[in-house]
Order: sequence, then C-alpha cells, then structure tokens
Amino acid sequence: MNETTAASSEIEFWFEFGSTYSYLSVMRIEEAARRHGVDIAWRPFLLGPIFRELGFEGSPFTQQKEKGAYMQRDMARQCRKLGLAPWQTPSVFPRACVLPLRILWTGRDEAWIGAFCRKVMERNFVLDQDINSVEAMTDVLDQLGLPAAELVRDAQSEPVKAALRAQTEEARRRGIFGAPTFFAGKEMFWGNDRLDDALAWAASDIER
Amino acid sequence: MNETTAASSEIEFWFEFGSTYSYLSVMRIEEAARRHGVDIAWRPFLLGPIFRELGFEGSPFTQQKEKGAYMQRDMARQCRKLGLAPWQTPSVFPRACVLPLRILWTGRDEAWIGAFCRKVMERNFVLDQDINSVEAMTDVLDQLGLPAAELVRDAQSEPVKAALRAQTEEARRRGIFGAPTFFAGKEMFWGNDRLDDALAWAASDIER
Repeated sequence: MNETTAASSEIEFWFEFGSTYSYLSVMRIEEAARRHGVDIAWRPFLLGPIFRELGFEGSPFTQQKEKGAYMQRDMARQCRKLGLAPWQTPSVFPRACVLPLRILWTGRDEAWIGAFCRKVMERNFVLDQDINSVEAMTDVLDQLGLPAAELVRDAQSEPVKAALRAQTEEARRRGIFGAPTFFAGKEMFWGNDRLDDALAWAASDIER
Repeated sequence: MNETTAASSEIEFWFEFGSTYSYLSVMRIEEAARRHGVDIAWRPFLLGPIFRELGFEGSPFTQQKEKGAYMQRDMARQCRKLGLAPWQTPSVFPRACVLPLRILWTGRDEAWIGAFCRKVMERNFVLDQDINSVEAMTDVLDQLGLPAAELVRDAQSEPVKAALRAQTEEARRRGIFGAPTFFAGKEMFWGNDRLDDALAWAASDIER
C-alpha cells in the first residue's frame, strides 16, 4: 500500500465514553488504523437518546441483568486478551460523559485526540473515576500539556452543544443502535469485534 | 495434544435452528472443535421463551428494525468470510423449529448429529424452506440415510417434548440470553464471534 492509497482511506469511529466495548476500541484504534493505512474520523455521540428510542432505560446492560453480568465477564477476558489493565466493574455505569464528548468534538482533528480519548477511558474504566466534571477534564487535559481552561470553555459553548446534539441525530438517521460503530464509506460495522474487518474494508477498494 | 487430553475437554453448544448467528457456528463447529481436540455437547433450546422474558416479541432483530437491518448486512459479510453460500434474507424469520430441536435432542450423542444440524440450517438459510414440518424433517433425514419415520416419531414423544422444555428452563437458569451460547465448564461465551475463544478455553486447563 502506498502513501496515496493510505491518505484516501478513512474510518468513521462513532462512540461515547460511557460504553464498555467502545473502551476496547479506543485503546487500540490508532495503532490498528496506522497498520492498515487508514485515517480515523472521530464521531462522538450520545447513546442515551438512541437507547431510549429502542426502549431501553440507561443501557441494555443495566436493563437486562443476564446480559449485563455476561458483559462484565466478557470485558475481563477481552481486556486480558488485548493486554489492557485488569478489568474491574465500574462503581457507576454508565457514566455521564457529555463534557468529554464535547471536548472530543472540538479537538476531533487535533493530533492529541487519540491520547485524550484513551485518558478519559482509563479514568472511567481503570481508575473508576468521574469523567464529566470540569475538574476531571482539567486533570486529563493538564496531563497532556494542553490548555485545559480554554478547551473546557470552548467545549461548553452553545455551538459545540448544538453540534453534539446534531451528531446524535445523525447517528439515529444512519441507523446506529449501539457503540462502538464504524463506517467505511456507507458500510456499517457494529462492535469492537468488527474493528479489524472495518479497517480492512476501509483499506481496500473492494465494492462488495 | 494427546488423545487423553482431547477426550477430557468439552464445549456445550446451546442454540436453536431459527437463529442466524447460530447458523454460522453450526456450519463450522465440528471442524473447529476437532482442531482444538474438544468434544461437542449439543444443547438445543427454544429462544422464544427467553426473549419474551427479556421483553422481546419474536426476536430483538424483528423488534429493533435498525439492528435487524444491520444483522442482514453483517450476515452477508460473515457468510462470505467463512466461505458459506451467499447470504439471502429468509422469507420467514425467525422460523419455527421445535421439531428439528426435538430430533436434535434424541440424536445428540449420535455420529450423524453434526451433519443433521448443518442440513437443517442450510434448509432454513440457504434453501429458504420450512424446517418444522414432518415432511421437511423426513426429507433431511432421508438424505442422511437415516430411519426418518422412526426418528420423527421418537422426537414427538412426551418424554422428548418434556426434555426440550427442561432444556429451555436450564438455559434460563444458567443466564443464557441469546444464541449461540457456549460453555467451557462454567465459563460462558455468547455469539459466533466467541466460538474460537470458547474452544481455546475448553482445550486449556487454565483457571482464570
């Protein structure tokens, strides 16, 4: 694959920070995309309104207790398989994450965005800490050497709030029903288990 | 891996014939299990009562139309990836399958059981034909050179009907919420995407 091909391939990565399987994808997508020569388009959205429309309050994992119990066990196995920190059930689930999603929106084209997303996910699922307060986000942005006060202020502006609402509306319009969801062109892939297939699709020119 | 190890490893394979992702597992489990030196314990059950308890009528794929549309597309990709016949949306979904499940129960320890399950699945998802009539099952069993009349009669006996009901009750008791589901000892794995992990777990002695 040459540089020209690599530059023309893109994967859209739709997720939110409260989502357990999105955590798995966030931690590995930059490295995996680089391997495939694919660029990442970061697409934050809110799962809550999508789930409510599907008839779930909170999350399918909290409403269906058998599925929720299984997910915890599966996450433990997946974290081990992917070489992540040992899984622990978060004390709050799903965690509210509108502020980091707004920061993600404002920084979506910046070089630091992958590192920011990993820090937020680790705060939620490894450190088991709040991710929706100004203090939490200031701490994360400080660690990355970024202008925290400015970024948090920008993220709380009306245009950014409206943009995140529009993203969620766009997710609904495109038939997204969970996270993570990937698009390679019009081709949709759901779940961390499909990340590699999605990247391979994006990297190829195959029309199937 | 030697013969002794192989004989001591087992995977429980819980599924029903109406389930699309179970189709993918049925078509490949015998070969995959042989590769891992793992025996298969065939565990038929009915998804309908399990789904109803979770609040779904029919199937999550018929009730949540976005998820159903995605599943069709994902099945097409997965069939191609696994080298199966080109996927086509069944004209009836989910298909009733209580008769083949009862036959599966009666034949679960026979050498022909894998071939029987593949024939039933292909009838449903490749030929797009009914799988719940005496005629359908007679046709399948005839093709395998088996005593169809006798097997169908046995499958419709009261003890077998009761056994399948008990299987479904056992599925609920063990926290099964979908199909296919695999158990390696007490370890549960959900979905065709976890078949290889489940087999690897069964083949190893690792206590994790």
